[in-house]
Amino acid sequence: MNKTLAELAALVNGTVIGDASIVISGIASLTDARSGDITFFTNPRYRRLLSSTQASAVIAAERISDTDLPLIIAPDPYRAYAIIARLCFEKPFCPLGISPQAVIAESAVIGAEPSISPLVFIGEDTVIGDRVVIHPGVIIGAQVRIGNDVILHSNVVLQERSILGDRVILHPGVVIGGDGFGYARDHQGASIKIPQVGIVQIDDDVEIGANSTVDRAALGKTWIKRGAKIDNLVMVAHNVVIGEDTVVVAQSGIAGSTEIGNRVILAAKAGIAGHLHIGDRATVTATGGVHKDVPAGSVVSGRPAIPHRDWLKSKILCSRLPEMHTELKQLKEAVARLEERLEHNKNGKEES
Amino acid sequence: MNKTLAELAALVNGTVIGDASIVISGIASLTDARSGDITFFTNPRYRRLLSSTQASAVIAAERISDTDLPLIIAPDPYRAYAIIARLCFEKPFCPLGISPQAVIAESAVIGAEPSISPLVFIGEDTVIGDRVVIHPGVIIGAQVRIGNDVILHSNVVLQERSILGDRVILHPGVVIGGDGFGYARDHQGASIKIPQVGIVQIDDDVEIGANSTVDRAALGKTWIKRGAKIDNLVMVAHNVVIGEDTVVVAQSGIAGSTEIGNRVILAAKAGIAGHLHIGDRATVTATGGVHKDVPAGSVVSGRPAIPHRDWLKSKILCSRLPEMHTELKQLKEAVARLEERLEHNKNGKEES
Amino acid sequence: MNKTLAELAALVNGTVIGDASIVISGIASLTDARSGDITFFTNPRYRRLLSSTQASAVIAAERISDTDLPLIIAPDPYRAYAIIARLCFEKPFCPLGISPQAVIAESAVIGAEPSISPLVFIGEDTVIGDRVVIHPGVIIGAQVRIGNDVILHSNVVLQERSILGDRVILHPGVVIGGDGFGYARDHQGASIKIPQVGIVQIDDDVEIGANSTVDRAALGKTWIKRGAKIDNLVMVAHNVVIGEDTVVVAQSGIAGSTEIGNRVILAAKAGIAGHLHIGDRATVTATGGVHKDVPAGSVVSGRPAIPHRDWLKSKILCSRLPEMHTELKQLKEAVARLEERLEHNKNGKEES
Repeated sequence: MNKTLAELAALVNGTVIGDASIVISGIASLTDARSGDITFFTNPRYRRLLSSTQASAVIAAERISDTDLPLIIAPDPYRAYAIIARLCFEKPFCPLGISPQAVIAESAVIGAEPSISPLVFIGEDTVIGDRVVIHPGVIIGAQVRIGNDVILHSNVVLQERSILGDRVILHPGVVIGGDGFGYARDHQGASIKIPQVGIVQIDDDVEIGANSTVDRAALGKTWIKRGAKIDNLVMVAHNVVIGEDTVVVAQSGIAGSTEIGNRVILAAKAGIAGHLHIGDRATVTATGGVHKDVPAGSVVSGRPAIPHRDWLKSKILCSRLPEMHTELKQLKEAVARLEERLEHNKNGKEES
Repeated sequence: MNKTLAELAALVNGTVIGDASIVISGIASLTDARSGDITFFTNPRYRRLLSSTQASAVIAAERISDTDLPLIIAPDPYRAYAIIARLCFEKPFCPLGISPQAVIAESAVIGAEPSISPLVFIGEDTVIGDRVVIHPGVIIGAQVRIGNDVILHSNVVLQERSILGDRVILHPGVVIGGDGFGYARDHQGASIKIPQVGIVQIDDDVEIGANSTVDRAALGKTWIKRGAKIDNLVMVAHNVVIGEDTVVVAQSGIAGSTEIGNRVILAAKAGIAGHLHIGDRATVTATGGVHKDVPAGSVVSGRPAIPHRDWLKSKILCSRLPEMHTELKQLKEAVARLEERLEHNKNGKEES
Repeated sequence: MNKTLAELAALVNGTVIGDASIVISGIASLTDARSGDITFFTNPRYRRLLSSTQASAVIAAERISDTDLPLIIAPDPYRAYAIIARLCFEKPFCPLGISPQAVIAESAVIGAEPSISPLVFIGEDTVIGDRVVIHPGVIIGAQVRIGNDVILHSNVVLQERSILGDRVILHPGVVIGGDGFGYARDHQGASIKIPQVGIVQIDDDVEIGANSTVDRAALGKTWIKRGAKIDNLVMVAHNVVIGEDTVVVAQSGIAGSTEIGNRVILAAKAGIAGHLHIGDRATVTATGGVHKDVPAGSVVSGRPAIPHRDWLKSKILCSRLPEMHTELKQLKEAVARLEERLEHNKNGKEES
């Protein structure tokens, strides 16, 4: 990348303060940036690094007094960083073809410009779109459908009949379409396995992190909609629906048949019980445990999760429990003294 | 499947209300069912779907007024659904043989009617039973013993000397027999690795979900007994024992040397500390964190886990904390007023 | 192993009580030990097993009255067990060479005495040290650097440009170098992927448990320092730093850019938010959720985590809430009675 600061500012709808003609060739953190790089200032925690950075320019939300470097002022500097970084690190598309050491069923159909690595398995009747990149160790079952421009990283497993849209990215070790966890109990308390014969459907622009698992539906489909982003080690149970542009952070789990709306955020280690509905744009904060429906737009916390505001209040009051306990004790004593005094007065009066 | 409603009712010990002679050819959810399908009504949440379902019959626990469709009344409609679904989706057994692209040690012994896929590795002296299905990417170490009718899904890893009974099902990415997490500390605070030389033994009819891990014992064995069902992303540490027909839901973890009884339920994200005993038929509710033994048959909740009833009470009282805080403040004021009045009375009397 | 008790005691800086000349040939648990084995007594929970063990000697922290067996008294019997067990179970190093069924890029460089299994993939320009053991199904990307005496268990994935030091052990299914979870939001609320172009660096003597994931840095590096030990199903996010000899127990997660000090302990299911600093030798107890910096040497518990002592107090008071609630009610009644009596007295006086 070789662009002037003016050109980069235009790309991100920002404005330049300082010399807009300097040429930027890279992007790096405040610590790692060298001369020629642009850097970004998004977290006040790192303010002290501004004075020592070797960068040639800084993206920031507003004028900053801690540096004399040329600035791009952008309303959302993190977004500006994302846009410039994509430009900077974009690689030319370069298909590798189909390795002779991949094992591909005769009936599978592979689209144009494929990159299929060695040690890949592709099952019967599977159909794969154009420009799909399949890294080594990926196992794709029978009758799977994969769209265009999909990237499957190493050791991903797609079980039979899974459906992937365009531009889906699955990181290493992701498992799509394992059996849902469904049993009935017999009279002796043993588990009777319920056949899990549904599928998983993953729509366009979904990305799923390493070693996460999405189970196939018992009947029907488990469905992850367009633009949803799922982090590592997340569990999505059978028949779950995850809405568009929803974000699910690492180690969260969603139980069976729950429907998550659009643009929801499930922060790290959140747990959602089964058969619930989480409304659009709701947020479950980290480690929240949700046991009932969450209305659209609300923020819930705790286990069981309650409105975030109530949870904060309750946390503050919990921290005041020792104080409350002491006050209660003091009150008991004060009341006892009062009772004694009244008793004494009465007796005094009676005696007088 | 083509069975009359009468035949299906007999299978599940149910009784028919309505036309018992109609022929059922499939099973589906209230939403997805079409003419010819039977469906099931187990969750009151979905009552409104009864009026619009296209199914030809419904399995239910009792007479329902929301539909005129023929019914199978079964005491446990979910179990009835399980039994009919198994009948409906059962596939004929069809062994695929041994792929020439599998890598199998000369000393390994493979039973009758095997299905061993390409890209499978089987180590020295491993013995595999009859009708075992091994999907692509499965890695089996040396001296492993596998029973009959086992299914190993893609990319499962069985480390050396693991023992699997009959009808075990391991979903993709399951790791059996990784080293337990055992270290002593040296004088400088560094960790000395303790050799993990025990094994994992998994008994008949156990099923384990995608990307779960069961560590080998330090010495002796980690042992999962008959009929236990383990969901995805569960961690079973070294020397743990899990009892018969016990159910462990997703993202739960069990620390070293803990013994879980029979027919226990660990709900999602439960955590059990090490060296504990969880009695038969106990339940740990979702996200419960257990730090001491749990008696047979009891239900515990919270972190640290306490009897569920106490936990409920404490949660209710926690939600009343703001109210309690206000009452405490009002009481303090009331007592102060009383003290003042008494003081005033006394002074008044003294003055008079 | 065939060593006298005296020889073993010398190895662990212990002293013998009883016959020091007996020959020990193995080590096993109290339950499993047979004649000729030494066993160890480290957990008082298992005291009752001392009378029935078949072992020929016991390692213990002090004289124990429950047995007449010869003892090795060692200040830290668990450490003594570790040292003797390593001696006992050490296997001679035996390189297996390079399997012709491994897929290795021409430009990759492999050190001396390799063991590279079938179904392994090694990418372009990757450099591997001496005596490295790579089990079946391991996928190593391009430009990876691996030190000496490393063990990569089955189905491990090392993404491109990862760096591993000497004596690193990665258990099955570990993923190193998946993309970090980084997005900016566009004006419509959709996620813009931020390129994750940094690396993962893992220093000497690190061990990582099955199916754990360590994400590559957005820029710069995610860094796990010498001697850190990480259990199964742990999530280490982009740009995290984990200090020397730090221990991270199963199912813990560390969010982006957080720096964990040296000899820290994160107990099971701990969660650490992003951009924090956890001081050296700090402990986060099991399921702790950390949302602010933790000072060196401190112990924190709960969600959000607070000093362990405060957390214990608050837990005790929480358990007293029912009692506090009752007392509050009684006080209210007492105060009401007092108010009534005073009112009565006053009225009485006024009337009189």
